[in-house]
Amino acid sequence: METGEVRFIGKVTKVEEDISTIEIKPEYCEGLDRLDMYKEIKVLYWFHLRDNEKHRTVLTVIPRRHGETEERGVFASGSPSRPNPIGLTVVELLSIEGCTLTVRGLDAFEDSPIVDLKPSPHV
Amino acid sequence: METGEVRFIGKVTKVEEDISTIEIKPEYCEGLDRLDMYKEIKVLYWFHLRDNEKHRTVLTVIPRRHGETEERGVFASGSPSRPNPIGLTVVELLSIEGCTLTVRGLDAFEDSPIVDLKPSPHV
Repeated sequence: METGEVRFIGKVTKVEEDISTIEIKPEYCEGLDRLDMYKEIKVLYWFHLRDNEKHRTVLTVIPRRHGETEERGVFASGSPSRPNPIGLTVVELLSIEGCTLTVRGLDAFEDSPIVDLKPSPHV
Repeated sequence: METGEVRFIGKVTKVEEDISTIEIKPEYCEGLDRLDMYKEIKVLYWFHLRDNEKHRTVLTVIPRRHGETEERGVFASGSPSRPNPIGLTVVELLSIEGCTLTVRGLDAFEDSPIVDLKPSPHV
């Protein structure tokens, strides 16, 4: 197996300071059932602006945003330029209304596709 | 955007009790540079045995393995049957030799493709 298909389940529709809105597509909405019992969830999203050969072939970076000056491998970094443009953030779940989640602390731009949601900690 | 392409960067080659071996493909191996400064890393892998329509269309589950009896949405669970068969485990990094990682605590079967490695905590 060389590749797999990711199906986007929704997207980030609004970012205002540290509060983000995520809309889950209606066909996946039932998967949110009882997620509201968690205060924190993991959000896997797609770095859609880096989904191209230039960024997906980067193997070393200098994480300057984190004050680093030395080069390191992308797998030792959270760089959005990486073979698979998947971001992962643990966020505070503020509310779920229908198919709409409001979260605090998501490190994703508006229009980023959502790949998965998982409870934190693991269940 | 409806779908994205995941490129597998390696796979789980051996599982013995709680110790797993991961082989990263030579073309991605440079991305491991300096990962050995972390004691814990996050491993994103592909639930390859669930990568089919039957399992990717499951939206509610009962997490019996965790002693639950009530149904909940897949996004409120760690079920491998979910729209995107991506697993995520924080593991103890025991060693890196060349393109081979030895880790403790990876909850993945042999032959599971590896999607990404990230430091834990986030950098």
